[in-house]
Amino acid sequence: MEFTIAQVAQLLGGEVKGPSDLKVNRLSKIEEGTEGAISFLSNLKYEHFLYTTSASAVIVDRTFEPKKAYSPSLILVDNAYTAFTRLLEVYHNALTFRKTGTEEPVRVGKDVEIGEGIYLGAFAYIGDHSRIGKNVKIYPHVYIGENVVIGDNTILYSGVRIYDNCKIGASCTLHANAVIGADGFGFAPQADGSYKGIPQLGYVVLEDNVSIGANTTIDCATMPEDATIIRNGAKLDNLIQVAHNVEIGRNTVIAAQTGISGSTKIGEQCMIGGQVGIAGHLHVPNKTIITAQSGISKNWEREGLVLRGSPAMENRENLRTEVGVRRLPELEKRVKELEKILKELTLPANS
Amino acid sequence: MEFTIAQVAQLLGGEVKGPSDLKVNRLSKIEEGTEGAISFLSNLKYEHFLYTTSASAVIVDRTFEPKKAYSPSLILVDNAYTAFTRLLEVYHNALTFRKTGTEEPVRVGKDVEIGEGIYLGAFAYIGDHSRIGKNVKIYPHVYIGENVVIGDNTILYSGVRIYDNCKIGASCTLHANAVIGADGFGFAPQADGSYKGIPQLGYVVLEDNVSIGANTTIDCATMPEDATIIRNGAKLDNLIQVAHNVEIGRNTVIAAQTGISGSTKIGEQCMIGGQVGIAGHLHVPNKTIITAQSGISKNWEREGLVLRGSPAMENRENLRTEVGVRRLPELEKRVKELEKILKELTLPANS
Amino acid sequence: MEFTIAQVAQLLGGEVKGPSDLKVNRLSKIEEGTEGAISFLSNLKYEHFLYTTSASAVIVDRTFEPKKAYSPSLILVDNAYTAFTRLLEVYHNALTFRKTGTEEPVRVGKDVEIGEGIYLGAFAYIGDHSRIGKNVKIYPHVYIGENVVIGDNTILYSGVRIYDNCKIGASCTLHANAVIGADGFGFAPQADGSYKGIPQLGYVVLEDNVSIGANTTIDCATMPEDATIIRNGAKLDNLIQVAHNVEIGRNTVIAAQTGISGSTKIGEQCMIGGQVGIAGHLHVPNKTIITAQSGISKNWEREGLVLRGSPAMENRENLRTEVGVRRLPELEKRVKELEKILKELTLPANS
Repeated sequence: MEFTIAQVAQLLGGEVKGPSDLKVNRLSKIEEGTEGAISFLSNLKYEHFLYTTSASAVIVDRTFEPKKAYSPSLILVDNAYTAFTRLLEVYHNALTFRKTGTEEPVRVGKDVEIGEGIYLGAFAYIGDHSRIGKNVKIYPHVYIGENVVIGDNTILYSGVRIYDNCKIGASCTLHANAVIGADGFGFAPQADGSYKGIPQLGYVVLEDNVSIGANTTIDCATMPEDATIIRNGAKLDNLIQVAHNVEIGRNTVIAAQTGISGSTKIGEQCMIGGQVGIAGHLHVPNKTIITAQSGISKNWEREGLVLRGSPAMENRENLRTEVGVRRLPELEKRVKELEKILKELTLPANS
Repeated sequence: MEFTIAQVAQLLGGEVKGPSDLKVNRLSKIEEGTEGAISFLSNLKYEHFLYTTSASAVIVDRTFEPKKAYSPSLILVDNAYTAFTRLLEVYHNALTFRKTGTEEPVRVGKDVEIGEGIYLGAFAYIGDHSRIGKNVKIYPHVYIGENVVIGDNTILYSGVRIYDNCKIGASCTLHANAVIGADGFGFAPQADGSYKGIPQLGYVVLEDNVSIGANTTIDCATMPEDATIIRNGAKLDNLIQVAHNVEIGRNTVIAAQTGISGSTKIGEQCMIGGQVGIAGHLHVPNKTIITAQSGISKNWEREGLVLRGSPAMENRENLRTEVGVRRLPELEKRVKELEKILKELTLPANS
Repeated sequence: MEFTIAQVAQLLGGEVKGPSDLKVNRLSKIEEGTEGAISFLSNLKYEHFLYTTSASAVIVDRTFEPKKAYSPSLILVDNAYTAFTRLLEVYHNALTFRKTGTEEPVRVGKDVEIGEGIYLGAFAYIGDHSRIGKNVKIYPHVYIGENVVIGDNTILYSGVRIYDNCKIGASCTLHANAVIGADGFGFAPQADGSYKGIPQLGYVVLEDNVSIGANTTIDCATMPEDATIIRNGAKLDNLIQVAHNVEIGRNTVIAAQTGISGSTKIGEQCMIGGQVGIAGHLHVPNKTIITAQSGISKNWEREGLVLRGSPAMENRENLRTEVGVRRLPELEKRVKELEKILKELTLPANS
């Protein structure tokens, strides 16, 4: 993707000082800028790089006044940092949605509806009766089962697996090798000590704007027409396990390697750290914060708590006990000392 | 799949009251039943739904006596709940094994034996000299290396990877993106501080009726002709790590994200929670129960123990120490109080 | 692969006693040796197997003197164990690099450079502008994005996913379903409670001799032209999470299911156990040892520390507190006893 400096300035509502018809094709830090790169200068600590950089253009605050000669064109904006961030977004978006068309070979089943503007990478598989929305990007080696729905503008990276009947919303991102809709882990013990699988016949719903990390697994619900549900705007990192019949509330964010056991409902706007474990059949209230490696084994009633430790306590209580544990060897010494004094004290009385 | 109500009744050993030639094609909760659905009524708390549901058929206990008019056909059975569960199983089984035939393109190597009734999904890969049993279901994008054996009625979901020489038993289920037979993690330190890989030349054996969750990894044994072994009926959830030379006993069930280090032998009929870690070269006795997030770092001799905590203790002992830890801040106060009293007590004597 | 006994002896610098033109085609334990197998005898505890084995050849120490009749040819070497290990390496190497050529169908993009001696398995995908070195082994279903570089002699097992712009060094091994370069987990909270993705535009660098386990995920850096970096000789086990902008030093080894949060820098020659969590923006010094399931939540200054527990302490301190925790119920009793004695002691004085 190539733009002229003028085009970039227009996008940012900025003004060019210097040549405006040069082409730029990438973003770069100012200290690493080379010809064709566009960079920015916000923190004046880095001002000296402006006078040496080979970047073709540098975004600066309107108020900035150079003190020496420099070679790049300047793009003057109200806030250079915000403008550059905006540029990153536009660039990322353009990259993400640039691919269209179908690469051969692919396998598309019977009675499949496909919206306009989609990208269907080589070796992608779409099962019968599935419906794919507009501008969906299906990377190579994606597997979509039967009767699946994928909303508009959703991106499925290479190796994503979506089992039959799952519903994926609009503007979702699923990273490579994520697995949506595998069987929940349910087995009934038999008289001979073996286990018999409890049929897992439900599906998974991801609402809109959901993000799923690489190698994360979300199991289907047990009963037919029941769903494991990830609500609008929830963001899940890599290698997370979400068991059957779980529900995760709107705008809840969960860091990598956390596991959520069956039938647990997590509220809205929660922030859950990495490697957290949450037991089954619990309810986690809205706005709960759970620190990394914690273990949630019971229900908490109030919203907005900070939980920590395994088994988790309220943060302040947990920190107190953590300090207590560190001081334990010293506490034992103090008790020993007390015992000694008391023994000496009581000895004469008994003798 | 469509059946008449009469066919369903016959399968369940039940009796139809009402029209029996209507077609049903799905299972549904009674409160959500629509035309073509079959549902059940077991708990009389939900009886009122019978009088409003649009389900085509409802399974009820023989002893049930309706109090109002209703529209569905009834299927009378000894136990409505058990019958519905049986129906779920049959339905699940029919769904699971419904696919047969080969979808193009696939790649099948030289000297491969394939049993009858198999499904070979598009983009599946089978390496040279492998033997695939009857009714095996190989979903799209499965990779099977060379000289692999897959037993009858086993299901490999999309993206399963099976390295060379592994032996998978009959009636196993491997969920999407599970990896069987990758190299064990073994490296020999060299004089210059680098590590040299210790060749991992063994394989993996899954005996019959083993279930492996999505994105779970089971490493091969180190020595040629040696195997990492998962015994008959063991059930492993998602995202589990099983290292080289591990053995997991019959009918042991393991929840998600647990990791088992190299050469550890786990007994039969164990129940291991999620996010458990088990150190290497240990032996876990039969019927051991390990609670979630525990860490097993030593051998335990007795069968049937409940282990908890990291490092794990027997459950009762661990719970006592957990309570102790919670009371630590209070205990410190009590010791402080004792010190104060004792100081006051001893002061006059010393003065 | 088949060799004569004479060829094997030559490779090992050994001498054959008995027929040397027999063919051997596999390695085996002496107790399981059958015709065509080559085995070794090092520990004399197993000497009796020599007199019964059907292996075609057995490697023994030059100093070994048989006490009975035996059937295999002997290969006399200075150290039978070392020689057998060497044989395992050669065998493993030969196995690993035996495949060459392209299996159809594959998809190779525009402007792709491919070195000689590579293996390109069926259904492999290489994006535009990527450069693949010599002797690279790309197994079936591998996805390589655009503008990726893969160094010589690197092996990508089935289902590996490499996002655009990543650089993989020479002699690296990436196991099945590893994901390199997915988006880092970065979201900016919005006024309405939702989160907006922070564009992740960087890439991942694996230097030479890096090993990545099955289903491990390594996220790309946030800024364009920035990288998450795994240095030369680092070895990562299965199911590990490495977040954006992390750097892992030379020859550091990390066991399965460990997670490293964003922007953390890990030194050289560290040994990190399984299921460890390391918080973001930290620096872990060279030669740090972290025991399994630990949680690192702050910076440690000194090199070579052993860290343990969550939150981690120095090993000795942690072990002291672990012992203290186990003795807590007893300590509480002792304090109670002290309180009782003191109460009795002070009562008369107050009465």
